[in-house]
Amino acid sequence: MNAPKVVTACVLIIGNEVPSGRTEDANLHWLAGRLGEVGVRLAEARVIPDIHETIAATVNETRAAFDYVITTGGIGPTHDDITTEAVATAFGVEVERNPEAVAILEDAMPKDRLNAARMRMAEMPVGATLVHNPVSRAPGFRLGNVFVLAGVPSIMRAMFDSFRHELVGGDPMLSATVVCNLAEGDIAAGLEAIQNNHPGVDIGSYPYFRAGKYGVSLVVRCTGAGELDQVSEEVRDMIRGLGAEPLMEEQA
Amino acid sequence: MNAPKVVTACVLIIGNEVPSGRTEDANLHWLAGRLGEVGVRLAEARVIPDIHETIAATVNETRAAFDYVITTGGIGPTHDDITTEAVATAFGVEVERNPEAVAILEDAMPKDRLNAARMRMAEMPVGATLVHNPVSRAPGFRLGNVFVLAGVPSIMRAMFDSFRHELVGGDPMLSATVVCNLAEGDIAAGLEAIQNNHPGVDIGSYPYFRAGKYGVSLVVRCTGAGELDQVSEEVRDMIRGLGAEPLMEEQA
Repeated sequence: MNAPKVVTACVLIIGNEVPSGRTEDANLHWLAGRLGEVGVRLAEARVIPDIHETIAATVNETRAAFDYVITTGGIGPTHDDITTEAVATAFGVEVERNPEAVAILEDAMPKDRLNAARMRMAEMPVGATLVHNPVSRAPGFRLGNVFVLAGVPSIMRAMFDSFRHELVGGDPMLSATVVCNLAEGDIAAGLEAIQNNHPGVDIGSYPYFRAGKYGVSLVVRCTGAGELDQVSEEVRDMIRGLGAEPLMEEQA
Repeated sequence: MNAPKVVTACVLIIGNEVPSGRTEDANLHWLAGRLGEVGVRLAEARVIPDIHETIAATVNETRAAFDYVITTGGIGPTHDDITTEAVATAFGVEVERNPEAVAILEDAMPKDRLNAARMRMAEMPVGATLVHNPVSRAPGFRLGNVFVLAGVPSIMRAMFDSFRHELVGGDPMLSATVVCNLAEGDIAAGLEAIQNNHPGVDIGSYPYFRAGKYGVSLVVRCTGAGELDQVSEEVRDMIRGLGAEPLMEEQA
């Protein structure tokens, strides 16, 4: 069997509102799922503040380490929107007024509303291509393997969907979940034996305590459908061997 | 005026379940708020997978850069719980069976249930002190400025509250929020002028679109109560000067 083709992404959640505790991030989970649909694995995410040097350094570190970097936040018209300038710094390029972005803003609102602050939203790093924004119009951009999106979830989602066809994914990760009401400590040895027999498969064990009941969700993830079925069946057999029933199963 | 005393933290959310899109993190927002209460600013957060080298490298990078590092996830009895070993690697120490942790586990359950997998939860890096777990008993630990907690939110929260008195905070960050139904582009110039006059204050502008209405939340953050009042009043004046009313205000 050939090694699976793995394509990775890192998401950067930019803005003081999340680390300050004011706002709960509402983008990462959605992006993780959507990236998975196109065969891109979210490998890491970082939540960073609106500090120019931090953004630029993080963009440079992550664009070298992952196939794609997706940023959210910091591209509006106010003084704290510094993502565009910081990404330009990371790539060692200037920002310039992008004629296509100017045309979009001029189409979106009367000229007398296009003040200096709003025209900042037409400033793009040299070499950037626009990411369209069907919600509030002001575009994001792509520069190399970095996609720069808005932070407002409805806008971020529409932007992502406008460029998702540009992402070249790898082999999609398949997953199956087996749930049982055993304790993790009782299944650990059997589960480890299964994991050791299938090094190409990722088996995760996630305990839960809900409504006074405990149990564990066992998640099998790999790129081969046959292997997914086989390992899931081994997990179910292991559970039955301990006198319990696999309670539920999701497959995706 | 003296420069405020700033104490920072970085949170590491460890485990494949979040980047894979299976689970939505439920710890970061809570930790950001709780850290703020004791005068510690969440400066950054990272979501990383269950990969030994990634965890160890991230712990080393962040423990050097921030006053505190708090990790969640990966300290249970199963094969994918590798945080303890990875933190030991980061510090260049071995793991050893911790007698206090053994005693806790022995008190928590009958000896015949304390199998090899569960006894892994008593393995701690040399030099670690325990973080108590009033929910499910198996402890986390502190090593240097790194606190290693469980990932299950109810357990993570109880663990955090059991050691929060050990955190030495700086000057608490105060904040005030002014909301108005103007567009960001219309307030940007006035807001920037206020920001430029108060470099020690952090003014964030967060647009929203809810129930068909748009508006913006302006968040003023600083360590001095007088300055907070003054800058908030300047923001309200700026809004009134544009013919709108400050709609709502929260202060913390």
